[in-house]
Amino acid sequence: MAAELLSEHACFGGRQRFLRHASAEIGLPMRYALYLPPRPRALLLYLAGLTCTEETFAIKAGAQRLAAELGLALLTPDTSPRGAQAAGEDAAWDFGVGAGFYLDATQQPWARHWRMESYLMRELLPQVQAELGLGPERSGIFGHSMGGHGALTLALRHPGAFRSLSAFAPICAPMQCPWGHKAFGGYLGAERSAWAAHDASALMAALPAAPYPGGILIDQGLSDQFLAEQLHPDAFEAACAAVGQPLRLRRHAGYDHGYYFIASFVDEHLRHHAAQLLP
Amino acid sequence: MAAELLSEHACFGGRQRFLRHASAEIGLPMRYALYLPPRPRALLLYLAGLTCTEETFAIKAGAQRLAAELGLALLTPDTSPRGAQAAGEDAAWDFGVGAGFYLDATQQPWARHWRMESYLMRELLPQVQAELGLGPERSGIFGHSMGGHGALTLALRHPGAFRSLSAFAPICAPMQCPWGHKAFGGYLGAERSAWAAHDASALMAALPAAPYPGGILIDQGLSDQFLAEQLHPDAFEAACAAVGQPLRLRRHAGYDHGYYFIASFVDEHLRHHAAQLLP
Repeated sequence: MAAELLSEHACFGGRQRFLRHASAEIGLPMRYALYLPPRPRALLLYLAGLTCTEETFAIKAGAQRLAAELGLALLTPDTSPRGAQAAGEDAAWDFGVGAGFYLDATQQPWARHWRMESYLMRELLPQVQAELGLGPERSGIFGHSMGGHGALTLALRHPGAFRSLSAFAPICAPMQCPWGHKAFGGYLGAERSAWAAHDASALMAALPAAPYPGGILIDQGLSDQFLAEQLHPDAFEAACAAVGQPLRLRRHAGYDHGYYFIASFVDEHLRHHAAQLLP
Repeated sequence: MAAELLSEHACFGGRQRFLRHASAEIGLPMRYALYLPPRPRALLLYLAGLTCTEETFAIKAGAQRLAAELGLALLTPDTSPRGAQAAGEDAAWDFGVGAGFYLDATQQPWARHWRMESYLMRELLPQVQAELGLGPERSGIFGHSMGGHGALTLALRHPGAFRSLSAFAPICAPMQCPWGHKAFGGYLGAERSAWAAHDASALMAALPAAPYPGGILIDQGLSDQFLAEQLHPDAFEAACAAVGQPLRLRRHAGYDHGYYFIASFVDEHLRHHAAQLLP
């Protein structure tokens, strides 16, 4: 079904659009944003973190300037279904609304609508790729925090769907942190055998060869208030090393978990993707 | 009185700070934000528009990247007193809270706390200039919409206080628009003779010579929903022409009144100021 254009803003010679469409996978209306540079040459899917919406990256990251110059379209979906009226969906900021974790829930009452992985990979991304005439060889994925987890896991679970990958302060080992325990327990159930398929470090460690030979970029602030308890970049770094996956994991003194950190390094992420997507 | 640091974020090698202090001029606590580049060489005071706060520009404009490179500190105050509990202060979005219009009110119940001009010029700006060791010759002012009005009028009312001036979609002739009528009538009273001293076009037209020989930069979107009724850049353009004031008034097809417009052109404003402030 065609998306409804909610608003559009001229921005660096391109257009920052906000849209809504009826999602068959989610079974509810979903919002997303799309930055269209003057000449789109590649597409980046950006996944946001807990409590964020499709607007957050568009407003706060300052990515449109270089995206316009490089010809990168920026697709930014919402972080969960909204309006499902599932019991308890609003009870916490780290589970339910605004906290979809980019997977398909198997447990009730979440299984019906909380299908963010299928929504993104089978519905939104193919639709936008078709609209722009840009296929997987011109598509990259990145994200922040919960969305960094989403970027890493979707890129590893869907070989060939993306050609480039990066993340800001991603949840690298959700099986080892409170956010992951809560999300996976609620969405996937108590049986931990189902969890490894959505844990970036476990996924990487299980691969026979490096899936992104061009290299993965991760930026992590060392004053990030969630680093010690929730993020575990060391686990992903070790998994990459074991598989021979090139990884630039950059640790930045003084930077925290927020969008001032993201804005400070987003240009280098765009260049990382452009170098792999635009020959 | 020393300001209290509410939060601080590493940003492009500098620090984005949010602060609160007890303002003697306002008689209430006031918040402001300050971006400190790695090596501050000049100071820009940015005044925001209706409904905005000290956070808006810091979050949405994407100015820190180039400010860090050029050595520009960015001082962004709030747009009005808050917490005064004046009768009706929250009744409208274009008057009262979030709508101080950067002047000193003479009418009740506003005269006691709504003293934004004295607050900025006699308190906040001198304090930050002293902290940074940067005087008027290294200070510029710019702003957006109501804040564009504030930048133009404060720069014209306080000769020598700023060396450089620019604005995004400013209210150029408040005596000729509904926002101005409402604000000036409420804050300054029904007697229109008091209004001209706070109308940028009237102030400019009354000058004997060009006050900013280095030139003033104004950017205006032509899809700005407030352009026809509220902004009147033509009036300011005519006043500048009459006085011989160099003005680059750039009209941009497709751009609206929001921060995607500001972000698209903020780098050129920073360079405009840097060229005049940094020899």
